[in-house]
This record gives sequence, C-alpha cells and structure tokens, in this order.
Amino acid sequence: MPAGYSRSVGERRLPIDLPAENILRLTEIQFVEILRRRAGRHAREFARGRALRRGIGDDCAVIAQSSRNDLLVTTDLFLEGVHFRREWQDPDSAGHKALARGLSDIAAMGGTPRYAFLSLGLPPDLGANWVDEFFRGLFKLASDARVILAGGDTGRSRSGFVADIIVVGEVPKGRAVLRSGARVGDEIWVTGRLGLAAVGLEALEHRTARERKSVRYAEALQRFYYPQPRLRAGRYLRERELVSAMIDLSDGLSIDLARLCQESGVGARVDESALPRNPETPVRLALHGGEDLELLFTVPPGLAHALPRSIAGVKLTRIGQVIRMNEGKSGGKKAGSNLMLVRGNKEMPMPVLGFQHF
Amino acid sequence: MPAGYSRSVGERRLPIDLPAENILRLTEIQFVEILRRRAGRHAREFARGRALRRGIGDDCAVIAQSSRNDLLVTTDLFLEGVHFRREWQDPDSAGHKALARGLSDIAAMGGTPRYAFLSLGLPPDLGANWVDEFFRGLFKLASDARVILAGGDTGRSRSGFVADIIVVGEVPKGRAVLRSGARVGDEIWVTGRLGLAAVGLEALEHRTARERKSVRYAEALQRFYYPQPRLRAGRYLRERELVSAMIDLSDGLSIDLARLCQESGVGARVDESALPRNPETPVRLALHGGEDLELLFTVPPGLAHALPRSIAGVKLTRIGQVIRMNEGKSGGKKAGSNLMLVRGNKEMPMPVLGFQHF
Repeated sequence: MPAGYSRSVGERRLPIDLPAENILRLTEIQFVEILRRRAGRHAREFARGRALRRGIGDDCAVIAQSSRNDLLVTTDLFLEGVHFRREWQDPDSAGHKALARGLSDIAAMGGTPRYAFLSLGLPPDLGANWVDEFFRGLFKLASDARVILAGGDTGRSRSGFVADIIVVGEVPKGRAVLRSGARVGDEIWVTGRLGLAAVGLEALEHRTARERKSVRYAEALQRFYYPQPRLRAGRYLRERELVSAMIDLSDGLSIDLARLCQESGVGARVDESALPRNPETPVRLALHGGEDLELLFTVPPGLAHALPRSIAGVKLTRIGQVIRMNEGKSGGKKAGSNLMLVRGNKEMPMPVLGFQHF
Repeated sequence: MPAGYSRSVGERRLPIDLPAENILRLTEIQFVEILRRRAGRHAREFARGRALRRGIGDDCAVIAQSSRNDLLVTTDLFLEGVHFRREWQDPDSAGHKALARGLSDIAAMGGTPRYAFLSLGLPPDLGANWVDEFFRGLFKLASDARVILAGGDTGRSRSGFVADIIVVGEVPKGRAVLRSGARVGDEIWVTGRLGLAAVGLEALEHRTARERKSVRYAEALQRFYYPQPRLRAGRYLRERELVSAMIDLSDGLSIDLARLCQESGVGARVDESALPRNPETPVRLALHGGEDLELLFTVPPGLAHALPRSIAGVKLTRIGQVIRMNEGKSGGKKAGSNLMLVRGNKEMPMPVLGFQHF
C-alpha cells in the first residue's frame, strides 16, 4: 500500500496544516495522484509508446485516434444524495446536469463532443415518469450539443439513483488543451460569472419555497438546474491557440485552480475584486462555489490582446496571474499552498475549499 | 412517453403470457429497445452518416476510428448489493470482476481491449485496505489483458460501493462481430463449461463456510470469483471469420441467447444434452446461471469443420441450431418465445430466466 493512501481514503485523517474543510477534496487530489502513479507504473510495464497521450489527471484522457484527430474520453458519476437530491431537483434538470458535467470536461480540452454513454442504476421506487423526464432533459442537451447517446448499461440499484455519464469527443491531433500547460507570467481568465450555481444551491438549502420564487434567485436557480457547458468558448480558445492551460469549474474556483496549478507546477495570484459575480453573489461563493461549469484558462502574456470580450455571449474576465510555485508566502509543494489571494492592499494564502456536495 | 415504457420500468407490471421470473430481465430488454428507438430518432435528427456503426443493443458500441480500425466502447455498472456483496467477496475478486465484465464485452465483438476507465463512488465505511485490494485485483487482470487504466471519476457514495467500468477497444474496420448476424441454419456454439459461476453463487447462498471449502465447490467458486473473459477465443473466431454473430454469457445462456436471437430476427433450438457442464452442475444452472463470461456464437453451416476443438485451452461445444423466428411452437415475435429446448425426445419452449442478481 503506497504511503499516504490510508490517510487519503480510509481513515480520513487530517493532512497536516490544512483546515478541516479541505479534507474531502484534497484527499481526492491525493487519491488521484496515487492512482495515477500506480496506473503509470502498471502501464509502463507493457505499453511503451502506446497511443495514450494523456491519462489520469486531466479533464479527459487523450488517445491518439488517427492521423488527424485525438480522442477525448471522460466519465462523471451522478449519484443521488451526493450530486443531486430528488426532492430538490426535477428529473429533467437531473438529466441535463448529468450530461452537462461530461460535456464541460470536453469543453475544457477545447474539444467537440461526439458520443455519450450512460450507465444507469434504477432504484425500485423510481417511477417511469421520473426516468422519462430524466431522459427528456438529457436528450434535449444532447441535441443542442449534437451528441449521440451510443450505449450504456442498465440495472437495478438497491441504493438510490446511480448514473455514470461517459462522453467521447474529438480534438485535432496534439491540440487538446491540458491542465499542465500554464507558465509563470501567464494571465488567468474565466468565462461567465462565478458562484451563481452555489447561490442557487444555498437558496434550496436555506430559503423557503416562497422566497425561492422571488426574482432575486431566478438566475441562480436556473444556473443550478441547467448549467451550460462552455463548448463554443473552449473550442474558440483552442482553435486560435490563445490558451496555455484550461480546466472547467465543476467544484469551485479555488479547488479547480489548485488542480490546474498542481498539474502545471506553478502557483497563482488571484485578485478578489476582479472576480466576475453578480452583486448578490458573496465573494465566498465566487471563490469556492461549485457547478458553474465555466472555464478557467491561462493566456500567455503576449496573447491577451487577441482575446475577444465575449464568446457566444459569454464574457471573458481576467482574474489573476500565474506565479512561481514557491512565490506564495506559505511555500511548499502541497496543493493549495501556492495560491495567493489579493484582497484590497493585502495578499494572503487562498483557502482551498471546493464544492461541498451535500 | 412511449407505449410500454411505464410497464417496463416503473410499475413492473407483468408482460402478458410470460412467467413472473422473466420480468426483470425482459423489461430490461424492453427498456433498451425503447431507449434505442428514442436515441435513434434523436440521432437521425442531426447525424445522418455519422461514424456510429453500431449503437445501443450490442455488447459494445462500434465507432469508426480510422481507415484501419473501428473503436469499441462498453460500460458496465458494478454495484454493491446488486452485482456483489462485500461479505461474500474479497475486494481483490470484486476488482477482477468489475473489469472482467467489460473485457468480456470486448471479447464478444472479437476485439482487443486497450483502455479502461473507472468511475468510483466510495462509501464512508470502506477501509483503505478494501480499496487497495480492489485495485490490486483490477490491475492484475488489466496487466494480463494489457489494458491501461486511463482515467475515471472518484467521489463519495452515500449508498454502498459504486463502480462503473468503461472499456475502450479496437477491431479492424467493419469486422466487429455483432449480435445481429445469425442466420437460419447456423450452428450455435459456446466456449467452456456453463453454469459454474452459478454453482459457486448457490454455494455461497446455501452452504456453510465449511461445506464451501470442500473440493466439490473449488472450481465453481474460483469461476464465480475470477471469471476469465474469453478474449483470445473471441479474437481467434473473428480473425478467421468463422462466426456470424456473438454475445458473451453474462446473465445466463437463455437470456443472452434470447438477446442474440432478437437482434438477428431468428429463433434457436438448443439440445439440452449437449450443454457442456460438470457432472455436479444442474441443467437448470447451465441454462440460466449467469456470470460465466463464456462466449455464445453462431457458425455458418459450411464453416463448422474449420473450428478447432479448443482455443487457448478453452473447449468449443456445439449446442444447437438457428431456426426461423416463428418455427418454435409458441410462435410470435416476443423475446424468448422463439427459443426451443430439446430434452430427450421432447421439444418445448425454453424458459428465459436469466441471472437473478441477489
């Protein structure tokens, strides 16, 4: 058993010098890192020079497909009680979100989604209407994104609704935008506005049904229920070669930025006042709220002038800069310790909280 | 909502004139059929001539990849309480079986597996040792099959261990062996011996730990815990173009034969006395027991002479013949009604029971 493994998965002990809220997501990073090393050792045993261009540790795996294209593959679990609650979410929205998460991973590579596969575990208490509406939401988004549902698996579940969405996409050979390409001095940008889905989630958790109907929550709830994967923006940025690295914001800016920085071996300085958010969205949720499915990307310093103000109606905003790994005051190589936040005149280590699934 | 949908998924009402035991699996067939029609309509809307050679309804989807190869994609759920029980199964065996099911789907197309992806939902009570042993079993089989674990998703589960295995494989362009190629007059063959895994399962259900240690159950338990996907046999049969259709026996001969016949639009006559089984294996389990992961395939009448007795140490056995859809006495087009069983001098409709997951 590799060192650190028992801490990360089983006993959930505290990683040293990190706040308690960080455990779940950081241990996922550790878990993925350990799994990657193990899979890498295993793959090297017999697969020198195989066509896997990028395996564990990015939004998608990248596989050489032909002389023109690489294949992108991503999988996303969508579990009742973890990723959604039946009492909060119409099945139509659940179907939309299950697929949107996978499409967003393809967007983050600058790719075009082609096929989806769905593994479905159905609990006995689930009505046919629910399943039908789930597919309605899923097929609607699949049509919009021109994705074909090409297969999957179905079975019973003894424990809530279980879905796993697999999306297969394409990108021109060698052109997939990885998490690992950010360089010191690059600018950090995001699409759209941050924290909206989390405002919607908090309204569901803490507001009455009547309060939630107010216009104040309309946009946030719409974003929570029907987040839009930024496929056009991702493709635009990749086609014009404007970006050095990209990731989608599925779990929150702080955790997803930490992932990108870890893969690139760099740090980041984010200007809190630059975060694009609605006036009603607390800074806390713009920094740490999940499920927006916006894109976070880095732009080499000479290229920022070529960025448009918006792509397909979605604004682009510069929020910070890539810095050296150990430039941040807390130093060290631990994930999250190399992220700095500028608040007014002060600069402080950025807390890495990530999205707390229920 | 399409007609029949509510019956198949939600209310679990009885399909007319089928025994009660058939409901679960036949409704899965209906469910897949309805989903396929819906996905097909949806795909035709915008994807005429797209590269999907085969979608929902076979062991794998087949996607045009390059001028030389087609891509195979399959997904298989592996849920605690449905596909395995923690108290019955070492994690090492669970990891093996989760991957073996996916590899077996690739074998059934005559393909070569290349990459695996794993979506994993971990319940909080699961120890690190368990997860580590699960990966040990999975990586051991991946090494044997020369498959690379290339990505996936991890998260919490509130409801038992959840795994979804995706396997991506290759087959020469246009050469994937489908379920739909069986023709009247073809011979029906299987690899290996049938019902062994089901004997192992029954031992776990009905025998004491001491009884299970007897040599009588050793082989069956080994098969139940570590079924071997027949990759070499599948590839051999495809390379020599000896087979017209193929499927893997994951849920039981009767249900999987019904699936193959439905896709091919044919019937089948099976000779009970020909079923390859150990003397201790009841006919009932050879006919309906699941999880053997043997291959069921059809051979055009002129080609049977070219079949070897065994492939890579696994025997091949002729068990019946493909007949016309309505040749069986019960007639009609309903799945299962076109399967006949010869027992001694009598011929009777074959019950289609399938594997009862716990």
